[in-house]
Amino acid sequence: MNIQEIIAKKRDNQILEKEEIEYFIKSYTEEEITDYQAAALIMAIYINGMNEEEITNLTMAMAHSGDILDLSELGTVVDKHSTGGVGDKVTLILAPIISSLGIPVAKMSGRGLGYTGGTIDKLESIPGYKTNLSIEQFKENVKEIGISLIGQTMNLAPADKKIYALRDSISATESIPLIASSIMSKKIAAGANKIVLDVTYGSGAFMKTKADAQKLADTMQKIGEISGRETICILTSMEQPLGKNIGNILEVKEAVEFLKGNGEKDVQEVILELGSNMLKLAGKGEDLEENKQKIKETISNGKAYQKLKELVQHQGGDVSYIENLEKFETAKYILPVISNKTGIVKSLKAEQVGKISVELGAGRIKKEDKIDPSVGIILNRKIGDSITEGEIIAYIHANDEEKGKEAVRKLQDTYEIK
Amino acid sequence: MNIQEIIAKKRDNQILEKEEIEYFIKSYTEEEITDYQAAALIMAIYINGMNEEEITNLTMAMAHSGDILDLSELGTVVDKHSTGGVGDKVTLILAPIISSLGIPVAKMSGRGLGYTGGTIDKLESIPGYKTNLSIEQFKENVKEIGISLIGQTMNLAPADKKIYALRDSISATESIPLIASSIMSKKIAAGANKIVLDVTYGSGAFMKTKADAQKLADTMQKIGEISGRETICILTSMEQPLGKNIGNILEVKEAVEFLKGNGEKDVQEVILELGSNMLKLAGKGEDLEENKQKIKETISNGKAYQKLKELVQHQGGDVSYIENLEKFETAKYILPVISNKTGIVKSLKAEQVGKISVELGAGRIKKEDKIDPSVGIILNRKIGDSITEGEIIAYIHANDEEKGKEAVRKLQDTYEIK
Repeated sequence: MNIQEIIAKKRDNQILEKEEIEYFIKSYTEEEITDYQAAALIMAIYINGMNEEEITNLTMAMAHSGDILDLSELGTVVDKHSTGGVGDKVTLILAPIISSLGIPVAKMSGRGLGYTGGTIDKLESIPGYKTNLSIEQFKENVKEIGISLIGQTMNLAPADKKIYALRDSISATESIPLIASSIMSKKIAAGANKIVLDVTYGSGAFMKTKADAQKLADTMQKIGEISGRETICILTSMEQPLGKNIGNILEVKEAVEFLKGNGEKDVQEVILELGSNMLKLAGKGEDLEENKQKIKETISNGKAYQKLKELVQHQGGDVSYIENLEKFETAKYILPVISNKTGIVKSLKAEQVGKISVELGAGRIKKEDKIDPSVGIILNRKIGDSITEGEIIAYIHANDEEKGKEAVRKLQDTYEIK
Repeated sequence: MNIQEIIAKKRDNQILEKEEIEYFIKSYTEEEITDYQAAALIMAIYINGMNEEEITNLTMAMAHSGDILDLSELGTVVDKHSTGGVGDKVTLILAPIISSLGIPVAKMSGRGLGYTGGTIDKLESIPGYKTNLSIEQFKENVKEIGISLIGQTMNLAPADKKIYALRDSISATESIPLIASSIMSKKIAAGANKIVLDVTYGSGAFMKTKADAQKLADTMQKIGEISGRETICILTSMEQPLGKNIGNILEVKEAVEFLKGNGEKDVQEVILELGSNMLKLAGKGEDLEENKQKIKETISNGKAYQKLKELVQHQGGDVSYIENLEKFETAKYILPVISNKTGIVKSLKAEQVGKISVELGAGRIKKEDKIDPSVGIILNRKIGDSITEGEIIAYIHANDEEKGKEAVRKLQDTYEIK
């Protein structure tokens, strides 16, 4: 077998055999084939596509390109993944909820890159919280308190990391076979045997339309089916940011408020939708409406909030910050964004808002960039809300006055008012 | 402008602007974009194609990526190029013929790579022949005796060199836009203002069918038209090797014999076809049949042979080798290939024969390989000839006995007799 023949097959729109896909992934991971050969094959896959069997074979080959986390001793582990969004603090909220309902949560999360935030960055903004526990400690915590959230300490799906970086520089990101295999390979390597996927669409997501998101969802569900990992997909609009707060500490605060019962409506909808399906997958109830009720209960009776505190404490974090959100560091400049129009908010593009928050320092442009945990944006008004001229519609939290003022101007322009 | 956007356009089957193509070629030549980005774009071009205007823009950008040889002081220079073949000694024969008929021949040729030989390698097998004259000396020779054949001493079309090497390793060779731009860019950079192209097809050529060769020919003719270089294309079958001899010294000998009037019929056809068109382009006569007559005359009256000797002498070569072919080094082992069947030769695949000669040492697999000038193959029987069992159908010239015996076996298998 050689890579030229494999490239030629996909170039000519033929179906690749399992062995050919495995050869490509193994050789590329081991750097026996070059980046330019991989780039040519990836472009051919982008243009000519792959059938479900090929995508599943690609996914499994990528999953097995590095370590596989074995969570079998913990029983049925339901994992959750979002295809990315701005202001997406869902994992911070959903993990304690699910755990408080008796389902083990053992989750490795990533850091943020570009305008979507990463759960690990958010958790690290809690003083003391350790995201790099050993695998033994990680499993130990899950056994003891039913939950642990850590960073990717193992070498999970290294082929995905290489291909992901390449795709970005050769304009091959928005491809269903490539997105689906990237997500599913990481979930499988991370030990999930049941998976709930939040497939986002709209201006803040990879998939710009609902139809494309549906296609991606169908593909991932099929991969799950073929590979023996039961998978449920929920479609979520990402036309505007999720919830009120964007930025690391600001999102932790919103998550805590949510678990105390003060959640934003749009966040609640996503939480109930994903959570009820996770309960179903875990065998805790077939009826989604009943499951939603259980989630509401575990919030109102304080169990979910209690579970978050246990999580933070067991990972070395200072729980007093969770109990008293005022203790968190705040940004030097808190600048109001004032509306210069009266009307209804027609659009508030998530992508734009995300970019403004990155410029403030809340996210990374390059992998090496350092994050500023205290900066970000609070949105007081969102799509559909009415606004009066002169009213405060948002706040910018900045540590640099000039950057803050620039963010105020840009956010004003991002609000489309009619 | 950025390369990701350009890749995305071609990926989506859109037409690239002149400026975008120029940006790609310039940035790739200057190594401002990476091999993997170029590979992705080349694969997208392979799959989605290019229209004539795009191909012409690509050709001109590649031609201008390095030096441009200015031959204007020499008058109308007609260049000739073949898309490659096994046993193709046409330039060695045609250049002296054309020059002897009063048309200046100023030609830079390449070295061989893979199973097709290079004119420069063949010339260098003549003791003393210098292929690296200065450009001044090169032009001086053309002015003085009407002919000079040298290697690529200038930095001609460096973008083509980079793209050519990349194409090979990513399975993107057999693409009309890429082949056409590669050939035409080199011809334009080498100063040609009128071009005769020998487009080969069949098992020994890039284009496997006559229809594909016709498409390539039409494309190059169109590029010539748009770029103001009058271009004529001749289609030549490369089902079997051209002429009798394959190998560097062996081909020089066959070329000399041809110019002495002892030419093989298939070689003669190609020479007359290409030569008559070159005379036409140079304004020496509209009637192709009359032109062919002139070529036959310049051979029979010894002028073409005389011109070859002048060429060799002016480039520092030892003419006594041309006058007495026996002086050339011969291989240590001359092994007969004996037929084990009686019948008619149905097939003698050029590609196979070429590969056997490369294994003997007559060609290069890698760019760095050294060539053995004395080894090769002499074909006594070709397609359509009748053969009796036990008869010698070919000779292998080898310097390594084992390799020679292996070549005998392989050539026996290559003759398909029915």
